[in-house]
Amino acid sequence: MFKIRSLVTALALTSSISVASAWEALPTHAESPADNPTTPAKVELGQMLYHDPRLSSTGTVSCSSCHNTMLGGEDNRAVAMGVNGQTGGRSAPTVWNSAFNKVQFWDGRAASLEDQAAGPVTNPIEMGMKNWDEVVARLKSIEGYKEPFEQAFGKDSISKETATKAIAAYERTLITPNSPYDRYVSGEKSALSAQQVHGMEKVAELGCTNCHSGPAFNGPGMFQKFPVIPNGYWEAQHHFSKDKGLAEVSKNPADEHLFKVPTLRNIALTAPYFHNGSVKTLDQAVTLMAKLQLGKDLSKQEVADIVAFLNGLTGEFPRQKMPTLPGTSGSTFNN
Amino acid sequence: MFKIRSLVTALALTSSISVASAWEALPTHAESPADNPTTPAKVELGQMLYHDPRLSSTGTVSCSSCHNTMLGGEDNRAVAMGVNGQTGGRSAPTVWNSAFNKVQFWDGRAASLEDQAAGPVTNPIEMGMKNWDEVVARLKSIEGYKEPFEQAFGKDSISKETATKAIAAYERTLITPNSPYDRYVSGEKSALSAQQVHGMEKVAELGCTNCHSGPAFNGPGMFQKFPVIPNGYWEAQHHFSKDKGLAEVSKNPADEHLFKVPTLRNIALTAPYFHNGSVKTLDQAVTLMAKLQLGKDLSKQEVADIVAFLNGLTGEFPRQKMPTLPGTSGSTFNN
Repeated sequence: MFKIRSLVTALALTSSISVASAWEALPTHAESPADNPTTPAKVELGQMLYHDPRLSSTGTVSCSSCHNTMLGGEDNRAVAMGVNGQTGGRSAPTVWNSAFNKVQFWDGRAASLEDQAAGPVTNPIEMGMKNWDEVVARLKSIEGYKEPFEQAFGKDSISKETATKAIAAYERTLITPNSPYDRYVSGEKSALSAQQVHGMEKVAELGCTNCHSGPAFNGPGMFQKFPVIPNGYWEAQHHFSKDKGLAEVSKNPADEHLFKVPTLRNIALTAPYFHNGSVKTLDQAVTLMAKLQLGKDLSKQEVADIVAFLNGLTGEFPRQKMPTLPGTSGSTFNN
Repeated sequence: MFKIRSLVTALALTSSISVASAWEALPTHAESPADNPTTPAKVELGQMLYHDPRLSSTGTVSCSSCHNTMLGGEDNRAVAMGVNGQTGGRSAPTVWNSAFNKVQFWDGRAASLEDQAAGPVTNPIEMGMKNWDEVVARLKSIEGYKEPFEQAFGKDSISKETATKAIAAYERTLITPNSPYDRYVSGEKSALSAQQVHGMEKVAELGCTNCHSGPAFNGPGMFQKFPVIPNGYWEAQHHFSKDKGLAEVSKNPADEHLFKVPTLRNIALTAPYFHNGSVKTLDQAVTLMAKLQLGKDLSKQEVADIVAFLNGLTGEFPRQKMPTLPGTSGSTFNN
């Protein structure tokens, strides 16, 4: 990933490149990688693991606690809350359509959903497990996980690799098609209002779609600098630059303040906004993006039009069955 | 409730009364009270509210966080963990079959599911909302709740009363029929093993069913003293008597150490055990109940037989659809 990063970043940073606004509908299916083809058994197991709070040290935090599939795929909080009420510095990104992200996490440090799934479980302020050996031992102690793992991966297959593959396979099914925007670009011209169409045109005209392009509005590039244009007033309000983005993991000064270009899909449901969740409303998020990334002051009308358009990116959330999580007979997970 | 309590307690405490072991299968349907008849619209709304973490101050704790309907109806923790990682002194009781409890909470302080549902939301160490006015204001701010409330209760109906009625209506559907025990008493004699039948007979013979009687094994009486027989050794290990039970709320010395007789249904899935969750395994729970309530020392074989029987009380968990929780457009719940 890091090899191609510089090239892609450079591309995304070149604001003079005009990306043709080839408006595209969201695919209804996400491709799976060669080493983890999606199967119904994996998806079913992945859904169980994703919703199982026993994957955390306290037994209270599951993947779904912060990336809530009953909501917009996240927690509507500024920053996520992990085990024992701990909080970090970043806002939980939505899991919906994350299959279409080119990289995962705000700093893009994971190249795949499989890699991503391994992270939060052992992060001390997220799910707090000591290490994956402890996670695997716990999963093995829950007798009812034996069979679903066997169905998905074969006999005696409980491991970090299979658990994260199952979670990723499940996440690849979390797609929200048929938003008003999707119906509009598929020919249903009444799906968006006149104001929403104005907003859509404005988004292209201003240059938002230079970075937020493609069917998931998450870019031709993987990363973008944020903020591009330093602004002392807004920095004092929101402390955007406190977080060095990709440089926090790469330790490379060239990566400072580079963040994954996040999807705009379902953005109306994922307030508050930005990597640190410090911007409370979508109106304000649009205003600040124009100012800090494009150097433009939008009128109230322009903001309203763009927000109307962004509301048209809310898709259809598939109804899921609730998983039944396997119990342990007569003892608990932390004996 | 308090008027009839003394009588019922006295009845339950009179160990000389031999309760005939009229083994009964679990009803598949729970009666609803006259002022809250169960309707599909109420159940659907109730399921949403039950799983909505925005009913807590931090937006991280829903009813289901501690009474997890994907698990055995609770959290498998010794004591529940509420907002900001806070813990109290009691173990979360299972929500499954709670419709058949005569009173709710370990200390029985709520006479109905409706009363119970109002409690944890504003408990500072559970869901931490300031008061129900704040809860109602938040629900009103989530536009998508308007319609399901209207469907269930009529126009402009969002209130504490309707929210708790909906949650109670949903909880009345959480029933786990067809356990091996239920099938056995309905005539399917092979549903329990010979060891389980031994355990079942032993449970009646020892007197466990004096309190744990009826289809939900939660008594003819509402309350029972625990421990009945003081035991310094076990008290030093488990501090059972630190919690004064019903007297904590009634402030009546006569109520000291009175607890609701909990159901034995699905008990194999609800470790750890007792009001303070201090007993880790079902084997040990059975051993201690015999010692502290009945003054009996069980042999290893007797414990194994009873535990085998109790495993036969695990019912069938209905597959539920996962609710889709309504979002707020462009802003979050705590703006």
